[in-house]
Amino acid sequence: MSDHIVSAFTDELDKLAADILRMGGIVETMILDACSAVNKNDVELAREVVARDPQVDKLEADVERQIVSLIARRQPMAHDLRAVFSALKVVGELERVGDLSKNIAKRAQRLDENVGPSMRKGIYRMASPVSRQLNMVLDAYATGNASAAKAVWEGDDDIDQHYNSLFREMLTYMIEDPRTIGAGAHMLFMAKNLERIGDHCTNIAEFVYFQATGEYLLSTDRPKTPQIDG
Amino acid sequence: MSDHIVSAFTDELDKLAADILRMGGIVETMILDACSAVNKNDVELAREVVARDPQVDKLEADVERQIVSLIARRQPMAHDLRAVFSALKVVGELERVGDLSKNIAKRAQRLDENVGPSMRKGIYRMASPVSRQLNMVLDAYATGNASAAKAVWEGDDDIDQHYNSLFREMLTYMIEDPRTIGAGAHMLFMAKNLERIGDHCTNIAEFVYFQATGEYLLSTDRPKTPQIDG
Repeated sequence: MSDHIVSAFTDELDKLAADILRMGGIVETMILDACSAVNKNDVELAREVVARDPQVDKLEADVERQIVSLIARRQPMAHDLRAVFSALKVVGELERVGDLSKNIAKRAQRLDENVGPSMRKGIYRMASPVSRQLNMVLDAYATGNASAAKAVWEGDDDIDQHYNSLFREMLTYMIEDPRTIGAGAHMLFMAKNLERIGDHCTNIAEFVYFQATGEYLLSTDRPKTPQIDG
Repeated sequence: MSDHIVSAFTDELDKLAADILRMGGIVETMILDACSAVNKNDVELAREVVARDPQVDKLEADVERQIVSLIARRQPMAHDLRAVFSALKVVGELERVGDLSKNIAKRAQRLDENVGPSMRKGIYRMASPVSRQLNMVLDAYATGNASAAKAVWEGDDDIDQHYNSLFREMLTYMIEDPRTIGAGAHMLFMAKNLERIGDHCTNIAEFVYFQATGEYLLSTDRPKTPQIDG
């Protein structure tokens, strides 16, 4: 991942990146499984997703410790310091994605029988493009691919549009049948969590792009659908 | 804020802390004004709150730049490195609080006339204990006061209880009058945002406590009301 001449330092950066990618792999399964648990009303799977979160938190703490120790011992400058900071940012974003997925899984355990299959499927349908964004941005991070990062960043608009239509759909279910209002509130939060996971992927894409090119992606250049709820 | 012997370094840390406290002051007004805008249906005030957010983002970027430069030039070790990292974390938390407040203000502009004064007041009532938590944790940060930080950390349970009852209250409005479902959804998100601001205050309290004592606050020691929505 780096052509730094001090090979021990390179090894440490690679170890850091490897841990971050492992963490990314775990949170990716958490997104998909949490939404699958919603779709199939699988309380056991939801519980498993919740149980995976401490592993994510532990990886984050490990990576942070490695970074503090690396800065103290190696005192990286300029480009290397940027790489280390970028790692710190990415790991923070992934921890949030894990948290949001855990939150979906917790809510999945509270849905009652008033929630029909079409409401459940709405959440499930949104999980796949969102987890694909995460998958793609992790690939871009692993390979330092700026244009792949930019593609993820531009793709967030699709996620926002998906969210807008899901939000409307949920409200209509709630209006048509007020018995679904309690569960519908949970599902609005689930949809919002997926939309926010998309935002975290966008943030990661910005760090990857900056690290690779030294330039910032400007939000004014981005296709952007106004969000239905601010 | 520090008795470090290299006084230039101390000056830089103090500058960092001062910027963080200024940023904290701005986001504190954002919380209160956003919720006041909801309460009074004051669209102009809501707009002003949204307009304050770029200032917060700019302060965050400034502080991050100072930190990168400080690490590169001073190569702080041990305790100093912890202080610098803690500053980085705190500034990230404050940026989120600003974002969440901005989101409340954006939603405030979308509420329609179906939203009665009691729904509005519910949001407003929660803003005051939440902003007090932020105020107290910023004081604890400024003075490095571990026991004050711990008090904030323990106080989050009150915020969670407040959220739970507000969540129930909003659902009952929505069930009683389905015309309020659209606006009620926005208000559920507002309440959730306030609850999350409380969580960010708790995170800051943990950093302050760790920096002052070298020990971690353990979540198992904390009074904790189960959250109504996972």
